[in-house]
Amino acid sequence: MRNSNRRIVLAERPVGMPDETTFRLEENPIPEPGPGEILMRADWLSLDPYMRGRMIDTPSYVPPVQIGEVMVGATVGEVIKSNNPAFKEGDWVEGRFGWQDFGIGGPADMRKIDTGDLPKSLALGTLGMPGNTAYFGLLDVGEARVGDTVVVSAASGAVGAVVGQIAKASGCHVVGIAGSQEKIDYVTKELGFDACINYKDCADTNALTKALNDACPDGIDVFFDNVGGWVFDAVLPLINIRARVVICGMISQYNLTAPEMAPRTTRHFLVKRAKMQGLIVFDFESRYPESLERLTRWVKNGDIKYKEDITTGLENAPAGFTRLMEGKNFGKAVVKITSD
Amino acid sequence: MRNSNRRIVLAERPVGMPDETTFRLEENPIPEPGPGEILMRADWLSLDPYMRGRMIDTPSYVPPVQIGEVMVGATVGEVIKSNNPAFKEGDWVEGRFGWQDFGIGGPADMRKIDTGDLPKSLALGTLGMPGNTAYFGLLDVGEARVGDTVVVSAASGAVGAVVGQIAKASGCHVVGIAGSQEKIDYVTKELGFDACINYKDCADTNALTKALNDACPDGIDVFFDNVGGWVFDAVLPLINIRARVVICGMISQYNLTAPEMAPRTTRHFLVKRAKMQGLIVFDFESRYPESLERLTRWVKNGDIKYKEDITTGLENAPAGFTRLMEGKNFGKAVVKITSD
Repeated sequence: MRNSNRRIVLAERPVGMPDETTFRLEENPIPEPGPGEILMRADWLSLDPYMRGRMIDTPSYVPPVQIGEVMVGATVGEVIKSNNPAFKEGDWVEGRFGWQDFGIGGPADMRKIDTGDLPKSLALGTLGMPGNTAYFGLLDVGEARVGDTVVVSAASGAVGAVVGQIAKASGCHVVGIAGSQEKIDYVTKELGFDACINYKDCADTNALTKALNDACPDGIDVFFDNVGGWVFDAVLPLINIRARVVICGMISQYNLTAPEMAPRTTRHFLVKRAKMQGLIVFDFESRYPESLERLTRWVKNGDIKYKEDITTGLENAPAGFTRLMEGKNFGKAVVKITSD
Repeated sequence: MRNSNRRIVLAERPVGMPDETTFRLEENPIPEPGPGEILMRADWLSLDPYMRGRMIDTPSYVPPVQIGEVMVGATVGEVIKSNNPAFKEGDWVEGRFGWQDFGIGGPADMRKIDTGDLPKSLALGTLGMPGNTAYFGLLDVGEARVGDTVVVSAASGAVGAVVGQIAKASGCHVVGIAGSQEKIDYVTKELGFDACINYKDCADTNALTKALNDACPDGIDVFFDNVGGWVFDAVLPLINIRARVVICGMISQYNLTAPEMAPRTTRHFLVKRAKMQGLIVFDFESRYPESLERLTRWVKNGDIKYKEDITTGLENAPAGFTRLMEGKNFGKAVVKITSD
């Protein structure tokens, strides 16, 4: 039983990898819902790479977290008090309430979830933002079609694993890029990817290009990129005419202390008449019912498998986040907020 | 009267800027058309930046010119002998016959042109490949719409000038980038661009970004890029959400002797959900009747103006090409093959 609201706030803006000085744990009274508001007790917190971008004060697609503010993030929990007829105690909801024990808001701030027999935490992963990202990124931005070769980086991650499985179900040849043999075995043996390259086994960009070339005999039609950097550079020489490059993330760049210089890439796009396009999932919000209905069906019938990387205890969320930044997580990174 | 066929062949592959050792002038007998073939005497040769790419032996969208082969290029001329009922002596045609006095081929190798009272050389510029490139690049790849801000580099060039004028006619705010006050006066005072920035007046990338920012108070929705390099880097910070970047050329890169390193650009595309796409005009070949019909109408009614940069004498084509590479041409670069 929690009798206070613990929250993790941004203590200072990190330079390079976030560490213990980046965050501060505070304890506050449990808030009271006002008229029309709903109070939820969070069970699960999502950890996602985009959070690194919110820690810095650079113009982006949303404002950054301010110093002293609670860290942003999606949580799943149970309604424990409701002043709104649309929600009742015992309902399970997902909302963007941040790194804290409780969330409070109106009906527009949360959605009811019904994962049935599946873990409720999936609403933060395969049946939530990362799953939606994979679905719209692959099918709408990437325009993946039967017969295409699809390459996805961070292949065992929350987004990458779903991308690869939807691509396989779509009749594509699917090649992942990941950073450990364990991850490679998982995506090829459990998830059905056709191949997966360990980029850590590649001495340089050219070596990764060569390994990918062997795994993609017909070239690459869709590159779904979650990592950026030299991995991105290695893939581009292999793209086919009219290829689509989906820029979903660039985790390799988030913790750099100085911008990385790189070879220019536009020539590949010119010669191949290829397209590169950035993806922010909330542009597709009006179509979440479509993606969630399908993703739920696919998880239930086994077409899409999932794996979670669970950190226990809200107080350990910063350490879990650093694991994610270092690629040490294996599966969707979530925090079980308490062990009770 | 020509009694031989002069042709300019690739003598050696240039490293850096092409010079007198790159080309060789040869003289051969005038060829005889075989059965079904047509012989044309070229009056005009087009000089275009893409030719630089054909001089090097690197995988691209078409094979390179081989050493000793005639340089590729489009020509306009008159049919002087025909063994094909589809063409008769006196017809004017455009075909890709290269840097030489005469062209020979079947009916699939040439198109009849009818420029009416307009100069026949326009079939190499505004009413030919560069005009088609501008039309499909701006409207189909760039998806320019009324109210958009369109920025075009090499603004007074064969493609850029048409891009800007179609954009103005489409109700866009149009800002050019060019390299001399004379070019700037031309595109703003003659062609109706809203503004044009002299990149040579900008000390660095940031200065160009600032100048563009002043000229584009609502940001940039379409960037039609013909030059690449640091100009490309300067534009990207200003692109709007869902912007379209059309990669048409990168003349700043063609004569480099080593690849240029640059800041990574993918973050702009991610944050802005923007699209970058390469453009090769022959992908739109089936729609040339549409573009040529409209471009002809617009030139005739004065909506699109043109300017040519004429080099006289086939033997001077190499010097004219170097002028083009150095940005010293002012208008579409063409060669009047003889002064007769």
